[in-house]
Amino acid sequence: MTPEEFRAAAHQLVDWIADFRARAAAGELPARSTVAPGEVAAQLPDHLPDELAAVAELLAELEQVVVPGISHVQHPGNFAWFPANASLSSVLGDLASSGLGAIGLSWQSAPALTEVEEVVLDWLRQEAGLSPEWRGTIHDTASTSCLVALLVARERASGFSKDAGGLQSAMAPLVVYTSAEAHSSVGKAALLAGFGRDNLRLVGVDPVTYAMDSSALEAAVAGDRAAGRVPAAVVATIGTTASTAIDPVQEIADIARREDMYLHVDAAMAGSALFLPECAWLFEGVEQADSLTWNPHKWMGTVLDTSAFYVRDPALLQRVMSASPSYLASKADGSVTQFRDWGIPLGRRFRALKLLFQLRLDGLDSVRRRLRRDLANAAWLAEAAAATPRWRVVAPVVLQTVCLRHEPAGLGWAAGGAAGGAGLGVTAGGEAPDGEALDRHMAALTERVNSSGRAHLTTALLGGRLVTRVSIGAEPTERRHVEEVWRLLQEAADAEVSGTRS
Amino acid sequence: MTPEEFRAAAHQLVDWIADFRARAAAGELPARSTVAPGEVAAQLPDHLPDELAAVAELLAELEQVVVPGISHVQHPGNFAWFPANASLSSVLGDLASSGLGAIGLSWQSAPALTEVEEVVLDWLRQEAGLSPEWRGTIHDTASTSCLVALLVARERASGFSKDAGGLQSAMAPLVVYTSAEAHSSVGKAALLAGFGRDNLRLVGVDPVTYAMDSSALEAAVAGDRAAGRVPAAVVATIGTTASTAIDPVQEIADIARREDMYLHVDAAMAGSALFLPECAWLFEGVEQADSLTWNPHKWMGTVLDTSAFYVRDPALLQRVMSASPSYLASKADGSVTQFRDWGIPLGRRFRALKLLFQLRLDGLDSVRRRLRRDLANAAWLAEAAAATPRWRVVAPVVLQTVCLRHEPAGLGWAAGGAAGGAGLGVTAGGEAPDGEALDRHMAALTERVNSSGRAHLTTALLGGRLVTRVSIGAEPTERRHVEEVWRLLQEAADAEVSGTRS
Repeated sequence: MTPEEFRAAAHQLVDWIADFRARAAAGELPARSTVAPGEVAAQLPDHLPDELAAVAELLAELEQVVVPGISHVQHPGNFAWFPANASLSSVLGDLASSGLGAIGLSWQSAPALTEVEEVVLDWLRQEAGLSPEWRGTIHDTASTSCLVALLVARERASGFSKDAGGLQSAMAPLVVYTSAEAHSSVGKAALLAGFGRDNLRLVGVDPVTYAMDSSALEAAVAGDRAAGRVPAAVVATIGTTASTAIDPVQEIADIARREDMYLHVDAAMAGSALFLPECAWLFEGVEQADSLTWNPHKWMGTVLDTSAFYVRDPALLQRVMSASPSYLASKADGSVTQFRDWGIPLGRRFRALKLLFQLRLDGLDSVRRRLRRDLANAAWLAEAAAATPRWRVVAPVVLQTVCLRHEPAGLGWAAGGAAGGAGLGVTAGGEAPDGEALDRHMAALTERVNSSGRAHLTTALLGGRLVTRVSIGAEPTERRHVEEVWRLLQEAADAEVSGTRS
Repeated sequence: MTPEEFRAAAHQLVDWIADFRARAAAGELPARSTVAPGEVAAQLPDHLPDELAAVAELLAELEQVVVPGISHVQHPGNFAWFPANASLSSVLGDLASSGLGAIGLSWQSAPALTEVEEVVLDWLRQEAGLSPEWRGTIHDTASTSCLVALLVARERASGFSKDAGGLQSAMAPLVVYTSAEAHSSVGKAALLAGFGRDNLRLVGVDPVTYAMDSSALEAAVAGDRAAGRVPAAVVATIGTTASTAIDPVQEIADIARREDMYLHVDAAMAGSALFLPECAWLFEGVEQADSLTWNPHKWMGTVLDTSAFYVRDPALLQRVMSASPSYLASKADGSVTQFRDWGIPLGRRFRALKLLFQLRLDGLDSVRRRLRRDLANAAWLAEAAAATPRWRVVAPVVLQTVCLRHEPAGLGWAAGGAAGGAGLGVTAGGEAPDGEALDRHMAALTERVNSSGRAHLTTALLGGRLVTRVSIGAEPTERRHVEEVWRLLQEAADAEVSGTRS
């Protein structure tokens, strides 16, 4: 494709995207895809067609095959997972990156790719109120950031065993701690890093806040020490996936320092709140961590894949992650940053342009306004649900996620069952609730809302039981959309109860 | 940014990119960036500016700050590293991906994202002549693909230690084998996977072809067995980075099967040649491997980051890489592919659109024509250099990379030194060449060419001595550009010799 062919085709595509985004924001596309397994694949040819497609044909295919096969997270009724706002300013930055076609293999291969990344991550650091000791880079996702952190922790705790006999030569088992509410990627990272499931401790949480119980952490560490094992790392979460619980990072940091453990803080979703002074309390103690990750590609709205990874000791990181092949040697080595030594891949895209474009075209004040809107909407929903009979807000609402449960009398609750308090207990009438029936009820009412196509919610396990998560924060989601999902939830609950009774 | 603001801004950016690409292809931008360390960063503000930028301002900044800070790999004089052709058709696909703003967390979150990836990777499989047993996915780079392969190998060899005591509980050291010419990412992956440098064997290579010596592999494996260690994995390379050497995969596969080792084949660059029937001999034995990776983002020309990773046993891969959090559970589980269980990150971009757009708009025949052009150009250069006194082609030219050395008489070579034969030896006159002086000479003449801004070459170590690599295959590189770099090389060599003598 020549530059002139590209010009013509790209103008068509840009118009298509602008139209598509307007439709998505207006809620004209289903919030949850309704295609069946295999349905998309069945519409594509089995073999690469011999004939080339015209751009218009390909756009028609995008419209007819791809668009129905996506759960549209840019929809105002998207309350699933966490926000994944692909802001259009960052889409421009991503296009600039692909258009430039630069490749980051070393500083020399694209000095601007490295230096813009350094500068922009330092802007974010300042705006987040983090101290100048932090140095940042971009990974694809928080899963990868966590794996990198645990690899560094492993090497630090094993005396850099990678340069000798490897982890397999470890004299005593190294142990990793995280909370039972931590993201699945933490456990996955621990297993991939080779620690083994037997050496992964899922520390208990407070039954009301779902935050890590630091005294339970202390006890687990002491137990492992007594058994001859070596506590190597702890991963604290600021904003867990199920309920945005906030682990007590300051307390955890004190334990980590005393026990010489590496501390990684996973704030994948919540990190965007660092830009709000009123949320600073959520991040207390984070300055004591060894590494911190949060994803601009979530609530902040930079298009995937943009996970910010900050460390306080880049030399330690590089000692673990470096590889210095001869064909990349250049005169600049030593006086520049080589991001290939900060992560797993060698070659990197110019991802910092996504951030640069968003920050310079939209700015952070518009992000702050949006975040505050979402916090207010979550507070509104929590209040509305708490005031409604038989509905419970089952976890503190500190950010933009509201975890709800509907507890109909028929499932073992007395009328008083809708009042506050955490977890499942014995109801006022002394009758034990039927937890499994309640799970089925929550799954069914959530599915009923999702089937409407007007909103998309996900369920999650909290305290062993199913809840409906209302995760607020899609870019077009205003108060009226939150009011609508609340109405849909109540209607679905009523319909389920009638259905059950009929 | 609203859809209408995006429309206006994106049309401007598209025009800028089309113009930029035309200038790059015409060689109007420096092939190697000339900025000094810190020069790009110094042109950016220290803090995020309060005022927003207009799109035109940001494009001016892109032009003035970013463009000079990039070594333009889309330049016809780019002979550095390996081709990284960011074809404009794939740039469109990437824009479609960002514009859609889909997120792949599970099949359900974007069925089309998963199914298009499955279908397109199967198209590539067919076009590459691989058997239907292979199932593919996209990773970011071959570094990551290799790490995933070695994690699977580690778990297979350790009886899935991740589900118990981890690698640290291994009873006997597990060993990884690769050639001394393998990419640095293989060693890095082995260390990150926890094997340890002591258990990484860099098997010797044939002194003429630089391919792995399979009898040396056999001996190393036997030695490890005798010492009580467990051979776990071997990584074979098809197309090494320095000289595109071709490891004898069939022989290696026989050893791997006999010794119950996992075999990963790294064909990051060369894999694109799978589309050429005349290159099939390079891939002999690859059907016996457990995994195979090659990067469409190299020679084939899909924009970064697109590394194809194929496995023969997806169940094994998933057993190692899976994580199944409750909040991603859906009715479709079990009947669909969950790519989160095929790699490290949970969330994924819709990268398959880059391939879909390139394959449907440009097709593979245009790729095949370009590859054949590059092969012919490399053969031409090799022939020209071999016929020129004091120049040597120091490795077989099987693909598009030509490794050259200029051996002036003053550095210890008699007149006959320019004749064929591999490695450094004693010259016809019985005089030992001065290897270090030769390294300095090659570095200096390469730097002289690069300083011209008209071509960009890199050096590499081959057989312990520096060579200049001429890696042919940038999209706009025609015969005349290869002729020019050959003239520049000869002029630089002459200038260095005169300079040395003056």
